[in-house]
Amino acid sequence: MNVSSLSLKLSAILVFFLFFISLPNLSFTQQTYRFQPTKYYFTYDGKHEPVLKLKPGDTLITTTLDAFGNKVTRKDQRASELVHLPEVNHQTGPFYVEGAEPGDTLVLQLIKVRPNRDHAVSTHLPNFGVLTGETYTAMLTDPLPERTYIWKMDLDRNIATLDLPASKISQVEIPLHPFLGTVGVAPAFGEAVMSLTPAEHGGNMDCVETKTGTTLYFPVFAKGALFMLGDGHAAQGDGEICGTGLECPLEVTVKVDVIKGKGINWPRFENDKYIMVAASTRPLIDAFRSAHVELINWLVSDYGFDRWDALQLVSQVGVTRVGNVVDPKYTVVAKFPKKYLPTKK
Amino acid sequence: MNVSSLSLKLSAILVFFLFFISLPNLSFTQQTYRFQPTKYYFTYDGKHEPVLKLKPGDTLITTTLDAFGNKVTRKDQRASELVHLPEVNHQTGPFYVEGAEPGDTLVLQLIKVRPNRDHAVSTHLPNFGVLTGETYTAMLTDPLPERTYIWKMDLDRNIATLDLPASKISQVEIPLHPFLGTVGVAPAFGEAVMSLTPAEHGGNMDCVETKTGTTLYFPVFAKGALFMLGDGHAAQGDGEICGTGLECPLEVTVKVDVIKGKGINWPRFENDKYIMVAASTRPLIDAFRSAHVELINWLVSDYGFDRWDALQLVSQVGVTRVGNVVDPKYTVVAKFPKKYLPTKK
Amino acid sequence: MNVSSLSLKLSAILVFFLFFISLPNLSFTQQTYRFQPTKYYFTYDGKHEPVLKLKPGDTLITTTLDAFGNKVTRKDQRASELVHLPEVNHQTGPFYVEGAEPGDTLVLQLIKVRPNRDHAVSTHLPNFGVLTGETYTAMLTDPLPERTYIWKMDLDRNIATLDLPASKISQVEIPLHPFLGTVGVAPAFGEAVMSLTPAEHGGNMDCVETKTGTTLYFPVFAKGALFMLGDGHAAQGDGEICGTGLECPLEVTVKVDVIKGKGINWPRFENDKYIMVAASTRPLIDAFRSAHVELINWLVSDYGFDRWDALQLVSQVGVTRVGNVVDPKYTVVAKFPKKYLPTKK
Amino acid sequence: MNVSSLSLKLSAILVFFLFFISLPNLSFTQQTYRFQPTKYYFTYDGKHEPVLKLKPGDTLITTTLDAFGNKVTRKDQRASELVHLPEVNHQTGPFYVEGAEPGDTLVLQLIKVRPNRDHAVSTHLPNFGVLTGETYTAMLTDPLPERTYIWKMDLDRNIATLDLPASKISQVEIPLHPFLGTVGVAPAFGEAVMSLTPAEHGGNMDCVETKTGTTLYFPVFAKGALFMLGDGHAAQGDGEICGTGLECPLEVTVKVDVIKGKGINWPRFENDKYIMVAASTRPLIDAFRSAHVELINWLVSDYGFDRWDALQLVSQVGVTRVGNVVDPKYTVVAKFPKKYLPTKK
Repeated sequence: MNVSSLSLKLSAILVFFLFFISLPNLSFTQQTYRFQPTKYYFTYDGKHEPVLKLKPGDTLITTTLDAFGNKVTRKDQRASELVHLPEVNHQTGPFYVEGAEPGDTLVLQLIKVRPNRDHAVSTHLPNFGVLTGETYTAMLTDPLPERTYIWKMDLDRNIATLDLPASKISQVEIPLHPFLGTVGVAPAFGEAVMSLTPAEHGGNMDCVETKTGTTLYFPVFAKGALFMLGDGHAAQGDGEICGTGLECPLEVTVKVDVIKGKGINWPRFENDKYIMVAASTRPLIDAFRSAHVELINWLVSDYGFDRWDALQLVSQVGVTRVGNVVDPKYTVVAKFPKKYLPTKK
Repeated sequence: MNVSSLSLKLSAILVFFLFFISLPNLSFTQQTYRFQPTKYYFTYDGKHEPVLKLKPGDTLITTTLDAFGNKVTRKDQRASELVHLPEVNHQTGPFYVEGAEPGDTLVLQLIKVRPNRDHAVSTHLPNFGVLTGETYTAMLTDPLPERTYIWKMDLDRNIATLDLPASKISQVEIPLHPFLGTVGVAPAFGEAVMSLTPAEHGGNMDCVETKTGTTLYFPVFAKGALFMLGDGHAAQGDGEICGTGLECPLEVTVKVDVIKGKGINWPRFENDKYIMVAASTRPLIDAFRSAHVELINWLVSDYGFDRWDALQLVSQVGVTRVGNVVDPKYTVVAKFPKKYLPTKK
Repeated sequence: MNVSSLSLKLSAILVFFLFFISLPNLSFTQQTYRFQPTKYYFTYDGKHEPVLKLKPGDTLITTTLDAFGNKVTRKDQRASELVHLPEVNHQTGPFYVEGAEPGDTLVLQLIKVRPNRDHAVSTHLPNFGVLTGETYTAMLTDPLPERTYIWKMDLDRNIATLDLPASKISQVEIPLHPFLGTVGVAPAFGEAVMSLTPAEHGGNMDCVETKTGTTLYFPVFAKGALFMLGDGHAAQGDGEICGTGLECPLEVTVKVDVIKGKGINWPRFENDKYIMVAASTRPLIDAFRSAHVELINWLVSDYGFDRWDALQLVSQVGVTRVGNVVDPKYTVVAKFPKKYLPTKK
Repeated sequence: MNVSSLSLKLSAILVFFLFFISLPNLSFTQQTYRFQPTKYYFTYDGKHEPVLKLKPGDTLITTTLDAFGNKVTRKDQRASELVHLPEVNHQTGPFYVEGAEPGDTLVLQLIKVRPNRDHAVSTHLPNFGVLTGETYTAMLTDPLPERTYIWKMDLDRNIATLDLPASKISQVEIPLHPFLGTVGVAPAFGEAVMSLTPAEHGGNMDCVETKTGTTLYFPVFAKGALFMLGDGHAAQGDGEICGTGLECPLEVTVKVDVIKGKGINWPRFENDKYIMVAASTRPLIDAFRSAHVELINWLVSDYGFDRWDALQLVSQVGVTRVGNVVDPKYTVVAKFPKKYLPTKK
């Protein structure tokens, strides 16, 4: 046996050894997955087969269709003719997150939420929206006239423009703030929920906070959490009163994580300025109540506030954002400025 | 050939003939099935395997557990300790009805709804009910104290009695009017709905009209309709304000039928005096609106009323019953007296 | 001293004596007053001059105009052209009741509530009613078409008939159950409330219970209570969904009384079968809550029920009547059967 | 005659001349009035005697007490003991504005809204607030514990500090944004409205927009408009969820004007960035609807927008602020960014 032979053998042993010690590391290496959806779901449902398994720490890059499955792109098209329930809000996913069990919290860090089309669509659908009779606020009145608006988008300038020939101002230009209209996990109690409806599991919250730079927390109700996302909005006003925002397909980059053993009641968000709770139900006042009670409980349990001090502070510095008032459940976001938080315990 | 031989031959031919013409009848003979459940469901879900297939015209005799799975039977027991979501309102079924397709109407004629236990249970559960903070009407207040009441029932006399030692009146005796708290079909749009929640598919309407002698109509959303039933109440006041009625297991006899090609939006009922619509949503006023719009539409489409005449008549002779105001959706029943109907067209 | 002088003195003494013995009688004699109104009020307001002073025990016989001031009597008339806010629900009164002070309860025993015209009017007014956008449930939808219906009444037969030429059934005949749409006292806290609006002081409750044979209890907020009444309905369905009942002028006989030192929060009613509370607010669920909490408190304070027993009993035998869901505040009546009451303490 | 003499004479003539030509001007000169209130009102009521008459263009400098009449100033005091309905929200005024007639719009330009005390008070009152049972959302639950918080204010630094010894963070410092909790005019239809209640006339809107730099527009319902103001808040979060803001007395400078012949349905505001509508009613969703319908109507009538274009734009760039969800009516502010407005026609 010569040295080189020994060297070779030692090298082989070393490689073998390194290979083995690296195994656990490898298996926990934070990886980035690109997923191109080929089919879409219209319900959040723990029985759906996951399309991809992720580990805590992994990053997912994927795409979504717009709320109408990208079918409406011209002013002369009618969403009411091209799109039929439940086939709205096409969801990409579900994604299984290893280690996520009922009673845990799923963490989705939104690294990028960006339109990948040069125009967005907004429609006034008959019997949908808050200023008309609709499915539940049933009326005997005639529906409003259907309209389709095409907003041109310049993603480099981060703006959208709309022509308004019937109005005195013939064009408006607005800044974009793209966000996920719909994002959430498999619901609790074996329920399956349409992608039109928000609830405790998230879903179609249509709230402007689920955008680049925000971290989302969801209660985990099913093994693997099974999160999905879709229904991109390039911009939207509070309440989404006509029933749609600037509907557009998205490219989304999201990093996943799991907080073990921590249960929450409603989706929570966090950005550099606020901690937030998004609660969804009807009537609106109960979405307001649910969001604020969860926010106060959060301040008490995680930040060491006395319960009544938390009520006092939220009363004086709390910010309320109305997400949507048009979906089967309405969404209210209760926000608390992080500058008034102590260092987290 | 003698007469008897001829007679024999003719008889044979006749028998043969009768056999053949009876064939199609045979296959549609109205049969009675007894079904003894061995497992129960806690969601209405088109994905559940049916436990039995019925044909239009068949009669089903079956039994149900009470809302707590018959686990609470003593005053010193606490439902909050013995029963946990979603395992309330155990459902018997689902039953598949041949020929029922989405867009049809399922008919359930309630021939008998009768308690099969000598006592009923009613509880005041923490954070459940309309006069306390609850899941959606979230409050910072403390829950009401939990209470368990055992009502003794005499089914021959059709009465229930309750001892009230803490009150000036030490006992009350009330008449029974047993009904199905929960009855419905698989929901629309691929959704699965907890047996605690009523909606377009029926479910936990907790309304006093679903009792012996009433015919129920449900929209069919899934092939076979997949109806289920449970959550018997021996009696209940309007609104079920504490959250429970006189909870008891039932023996139920129901005859099924299908109306092909007739779609309805909400469960409808009919007894000898009223046609009725039961709509379920929050807020209460929208359940009220939905029930009354469906009732007016029914009067127009099936009974030849002018739309505004129907509005006028319902305004003057309509009767409103509040089903429940405690479940995740509230139920309102809009009733129209049959004596003001023309002969059905 | 001569005889005439003595006679004069005796006469003087006698007069003096008679004056004194008559004092208590005079002041407590139950008298019957007929009052024919010559002007009408459109607000409940403690600042209005009373038109008549009554004593506890007195009986008042008076008349009221219909909701439109008797101006709409033909099918081709439009209430929206003839009647303008606030001049609807013309009120007869206010009547001052001696001894009634804030913190007391006014008792109005309705001895007779009877239409005094041979027809009643019902209209579908634009942007009024529960199945259309209206002042507060503001919508962008077009209003429903206005309609005026004239119901012929036969007071001897106690029925009303309506021709419906546009419908398959060309005429309906319904029984009358005449009631005061509007009755109440001067409001609390110096407020003045339109006669279109119900609240804690009663007012435009539009609930079917304020009819012959019912005793009404109102909280007294102003010295003399200052009750008023009007807005007769010969019949009405639950909710008054189109916005009007069978509007008609009335002849009313009411006996007044005062319960000193007993304060109540909402109008209460009592007939031979039920004790009742009528609460008015929006949303509907809060009118429901307010009525039932007051009913439970009543059972506890006046009838010796344990608080949770009262909740349990109302949950099982309570009856809910929806008064109106069209006025600026909605009215719910919570009813408890008197047969389950102990002898009043 | 020397030059100086001539100069003197010319000066005299000039002064004389200027005096005469200024006479008519003088009578319309915009004047500044200082008004020190000596009594306060607790209702908005067209029957109140005005305390001062102003002309369009005049400026008023006055002061207000805090919501509790300045009676609560220490942490150990209980507002529920010191303050009783209706004596909350002491109003300064009413001020009569010459030329203001029903159907006009009153303009109040808020030049200064500034606390004039070195501390503010916030309380958690029993059965008041949105996260507890209260007067209308009646519950059987126990009230929350009463608390009094004293915020120290440094008006030069524009901040308030609160000690929170029971919490992990022992002190917070927040910026002030002082505003009028209550401001409005005499109500319509002869009604009188408690200073606790907001409505079409303004009143207790408790919305953060009525601050320095904002111009307020109110519908005029009574001759002279009869505006009042009070209930200063040095800061407040959205919804005022505990029932109070940083309650403090104010010094207020307001310039008045009248727009003749322009009627509006709800109070409107305008600052450098937004036009706004504040609608007040229950339920919350109807305050939302009313505010947004009025905003859309405003865009159409004053800014030349097509009705459906206005709906589309408000849907995409509208901002919603929840004023209060604790008063007898809730307030929602619908805001539209002025940068999307054409030049006003």
